[in-house]
Amino acid sequence: MIKITFPDGAIREYQAGTSAMDIARSISEGLAKKVLAASVNGQVWDASRPIYEDSTLKLLTWDDNEGKSTFWHSTAHLMAEAVESIFPGVKFWVGPPVENGFYYDMDLGDRHISEEDLRKLEVKMAELAKQNNVYLRKEVPKAEAIEYFKEKNDPYKLDLLQGLNDGEITFYTQGNFTDLCRGPHIPNTGFIKALKLTNIAGAYWKGDEKNKQLTRIYGVSFPNQKLLDDYLTMLEEAKKRDHRKLGKELGIFTFDDEVGPGLPLWLPNGSIVIEELEKLAKETEEDAGYKRVVTPHIAKESLYLTSGHLPYYQESMYPPMELDGTKYYLKAMNCPHHHKIFAAEPKSYKDLPYRLAEYGTCYRFEQSGELFGLMRVRCLHMNDAHIYCTKEQFFDEFKSVNEMYLKYFKIFGIDKFVMRLSLHDPKKLGQKYVNEPELWKETESLVRDVLIKTGTPFVEVPDEAAFYGPKIDVQIWSTIGREFTLATNQVDFAQGRRFKLEFTNKENSSETPLIIHRAPLGTHERFVGFLLEHYSGKFPVWLAPTQVKILPISDKFLPYAQNILQSLKKADIRAEIDDRSEKIGKKIRETELMKIPYMLVVGEKEVNENQVSVRRQSKGDLGAQSVDQFIAQLETEISNRASE
Amino acid sequence: MIKITFPDGAIREYQAGTSAMDIARSISEGLAKKVLAASVNGQVWDASRPIYEDSTLKLLTWDDNEGKSTFWHSTAHLMAEAVESIFPGVKFWVGPPVENGFYYDMDLGDRHISEEDLRKLEVKMAELAKQNNVYLRKEVPKAEAIEYFKEKNDPYKLDLLQGLNDGEITFYTQGNFTDLCRGPHIPNTGFIKALKLTNIAGAYWKGDEKNKQLTRIYGVSFPNQKLLDDYLTMLEEAKKRDHRKLGKELGIFTFDDEVGPGLPLWLPNGSIVIEELEKLAKETEEDAGYKRVVTPHIAKESLYLTSGHLPYYQESMYPPMELDGTKYYLKAMNCPHHHKIFAAEPKSYKDLPYRLAEYGTCYRFEQSGELFGLMRVRCLHMNDAHIYCTKEQFFDEFKSVNEMYLKYFKIFGIDKFVMRLSLHDPKKLGQKYVNEPELWKETESLVRDVLIKTGTPFVEVPDEAAFYGPKIDVQIWSTIGREFTLATNQVDFAQGRRFKLEFTNKENSSETPLIIHRAPLGTHERFVGFLLEHYSGKFPVWLAPTQVKILPISDKFLPYAQNILQSLKKADIRAEIDDRSEKIGKKIRETELMKIPYMLVVGEKEVNENQVSVRRQSKGDLGAQSVDQFIAQLETEISNRASE
Repeated sequence: MIKITFPDGAIREYQAGTSAMDIARSISEGLAKKVLAASVNGQVWDASRPIYEDSTLKLLTWDDNEGKSTFWHSTAHLMAEAVESIFPGVKFWVGPPVENGFYYDMDLGDRHISEEDLRKLEVKMAELAKQNNVYLRKEVPKAEAIEYFKEKNDPYKLDLLQGLNDGEITFYTQGNFTDLCRGPHIPNTGFIKALKLTNIAGAYWKGDEKNKQLTRIYGVSFPNQKLLDDYLTMLEEAKKRDHRKLGKELGIFTFDDEVGPGLPLWLPNGSIVIEELEKLAKETEEDAGYKRVVTPHIAKESLYLTSGHLPYYQESMYPPMELDGTKYYLKAMNCPHHHKIFAAEPKSYKDLPYRLAEYGTCYRFEQSGELFGLMRVRCLHMNDAHIYCTKEQFFDEFKSVNEMYLKYFKIFGIDKFVMRLSLHDPKKLGQKYVNEPELWKETESLVRDVLIKTGTPFVEVPDEAAFYGPKIDVQIWSTIGREFTLATNQVDFAQGRRFKLEFTNKENSSETPLIIHRAPLGTHERFVGFLLEHYSGKFPVWLAPTQVKILPISDKFLPYAQNILQSLKKADIRAEIDDRSEKIGKKIRETELMKIPYMLVVGEKEVNENQVSVRRQSKGDLGAQSVDQFIAQLETEISNRASE
Repeated sequence: MIKITFPDGAIREYQAGTSAMDIARSISEGLAKKVLAASVNGQVWDASRPIYEDSTLKLLTWDDNEGKSTFWHSTAHLMAEAVESIFPGVKFWVGPPVENGFYYDMDLGDRHISEEDLRKLEVKMAELAKQNNVYLRKEVPKAEAIEYFKEKNDPYKLDLLQGLNDGEITFYTQGNFTDLCRGPHIPNTGFIKALKLTNIAGAYWKGDEKNKQLTRIYGVSFPNQKLLDDYLTMLEEAKKRDHRKLGKELGIFTFDDEVGPGLPLWLPNGSIVIEELEKLAKETEEDAGYKRVVTPHIAKESLYLTSGHLPYYQESMYPPMELDGTKYYLKAMNCPHHHKIFAAEPKSYKDLPYRLAEYGTCYRFEQSGELFGLMRVRCLHMNDAHIYCTKEQFFDEFKSVNEMYLKYFKIFGIDKFVMRLSLHDPKKLGQKYVNEPELWKETESLVRDVLIKTGTPFVEVPDEAAFYGPKIDVQIWSTIGREFTLATNQVDFAQGRRFKLEFTNKENSSETPLIIHRAPLGTHERFVGFLLEHYSGKFPVWLAPTQVKILPISDKFLPYAQNILQSLKKADIRAEIDDRSEKIGKKIRETELMKIPYMLVVGEKEVNENQVSVRRQSKGDLGAQSVDQFIAQLETEISNRASE
């Protein structure tokens, strides 16, 4: 008998050779139908693979990232089978799962594949899927594997085999298709109920443009049709909400060739949005007892040698500027500068927690190919802060930070989010992780406690912590269901020591503070990109660059419009007049397109009754009001940062 | 007869060979007594030098910078005479005027000079000054000059003579001292009524440390004793108000070796000050119709080639970072980025004036030896903006900018300021100045008009404009009378064209806008440095990092103090409690030292009567008030940005 430990800590005994699928079935048939793979001792396995030793086990379903990856990887094999049946003689390179789906790179010889071919392949794949073919794993000696692909005349797989050792080579077969593959795979093709081949692209073999160009086919698949439909709707919607398209239409940001790739210039409208975000952060941080600081964007090499970012992080930093024999680097993070401010004046326990905040601008070098609108940039305005505290203060401080995240999510109507709590692996203390077993246990359990007590949704990920402490990655979903990684929240035992940060404790001796790194609003770049999609460019009033547009029905009412404008400006409301001699219908339509929250239509009736006719973006006519009444309501809406 | 044109445009006729001094005497004896030198056709001359041609003439007195420089240069000669009489055999190198006084470098052989020697020299100088010795100018053939200094065995002056041509060599003699000197000088030594030798330093010959070290004696002199006394008092006061000393005491800023020289880290208190300054700028600029933008701190080389900053300004920029074969530079100015934002979206005349503002952070490379506290730094947070306008709009725009300067001066209690209007020289059009004769005339006269109509004190400086338009340098004086160069205000015809900036005019054709560069609050670095001295660290309430300190007489009153603190915080007032168990006298003294504007003393009486006893920094007890009353008054003081 072997002992199986489940995620909740429960331990049960099974026959040696039992598979994860057997165990799932022993629990319920319903569960077994959902199991795609299993995490055995932290490694993802075929659900059907027999287990012979005491193990920890997690059954993986569509709800787990590893479950999804396995599903998509198996669909890549299914696609290969379909391709081979339609285009005999095709040679395959690799076919991994990606963020949303999978691809397979293949050599089709002189043949070109068309959109029509994709539709044919989809039909073939669906047909093969229905056969419920099992994905069969087989360990193969290297010589036999080489023989197999020599016979198949496949130079690509033979190339892959060169890098593999005897004893670690496995084949997977489903239906008529066999592939060299490490696995794991889903139990059988029948799990794949819905699929779509999304794109054809060229890809140089091994990414080297001197090599032959292969054909890459992208696809995505799901365990039911509804999930595919939702996904396609989301894609369609995401296209409309593309932050690059909206960013241009609404005058939010621009790029310029002479300034450089990945370096956004924030246009006047975008600058209003980021200014409002900074106001929110400053207010929130001030209430939470943070002090603001301002630090330079460069520092000497020695600062980053002290922090340890050099040489390890060097590839993500801009190259140095050499001056008077000293190297200066653009900062890629604000922490070292903040640590220097902590150290600038002596600290006692009475000064702690000491919270330093700065919307610091960092520069990181992303490969040109990786750059994408505001999502992947080289200049990052970061909602950064560092909290220096004692061990005793840690729980409360971390809880406050967590509450700040939740507060922000509420303001921005982010209903779906999850915190990925990355933990250390006790076996790797002193190597991958700083050797502080007690501090690890203590802070991990404090962090977990906070998440549980505040009802914050989270998942635990073993062996993914930072070197210097547990880490939380925050993932959020936009209204259309697209996932964004927003920010990281880290506990740090190590930097305090590296920078020799100290405070005098109650016993009058020196102690090193714990440090919390946090950035709930992430970077302006990514967050504004997210918000553009999330709101489809229809910012809530408090964030809208122009909050009110006054639309006089004809030029005759311009003076009245001017009066209203003055009243609005006095109340710090961002307003404009559409003073063109256009028909009111056209003015309304165009203001709608510019996604301005409120329109005030003024004509004969409004002037006579000293009112304005209020229209709300995408809601239409709200009727007439006095100007004062409108302003009072709007002021409340703005100061509450109401989401609609 | 020759025609003399005076600064007011008046033209009078004089005998050829008349001197500036003769002309001054013909006007009044009183004036003649003040004339130190004269600007003849834009060149500074001895007042006694005969004029043989039609000329423009400006009589220079102590009130002119050139008058002062001449005065100090002549005092350097006087000092040399005194040194030679006390230390015979001394050899002199050069003795120029500097910002505040003069120095002379000399080779004293093995002799060392002491403070006591300086006092002796001062006495000797005063004695020589009283002799009213005339400064005699004599043109000398090169051979004769060489002969003279060979005889005197003076290698230094012989070295200087090497670089001079026959026909341009002059000697100046006063009393027993003759020097090789281009001049000009004041009429006679009697003008020097008060003097002080301030410092002895070592200086390598020609600034090269491989050469012999010479002795440099610094001094300063004045046309009357009161000016000297005022100057010494100012120096004494400036020492107490040294922004580096106050900056440390008040937690405003710090430097760190690992971050780098000239790169200030703004501590929490300093960050509050700069945040308040930015708030002021943002409010003011919003009212004036500016739009805010945010731009990256780096750009490709090509941007600065387009702007023309490269290669001409390269020495003042940080060296490039080379990435993917492209050079990136830290920005030393914000204009090119702003021009790119102007160009990002098409503009019509209706969009003009288009005003872009940013507190942009620039990086400039100053030599380490030049760095000085916040006054000379490498990181500059600049109160920058660029106004793009038509020629027709220029007058109003420039007037508004000027009014903004005046508004700020009023807020900060800057009573003494002057604008130096630098003009072009028509003879150098197409070389030193962009060849737009009409635009030069037009904008110069518009700028002059604005200055005159608004009663702004200004001086005109010919031939000192920027390449691309007239320029105004703004000089201000702190309360103790020290001069600071604050900011520049420039008109620009050239950059618009270099960047191909365009707008569609009313005739539907393309036109290039004029650009105004302006930065009324200069940089945070220099302005906060100035304010620290100006206010002696006693910031007005709106700028003070901590505005109110609550001082409970004993721990018993802490809960009451807490209540008051909450009320103050609710009103957005920056307040703290001194909760130490110290005597109230000590608490008051220490709060005074921290220069916190208001202290609220609370004890038995205050609790019973629900009041606070208010003390104002350096003014003492203001009596008891209700908390609400105090808050209401303080809110008014803050929102008015009252200076006291």
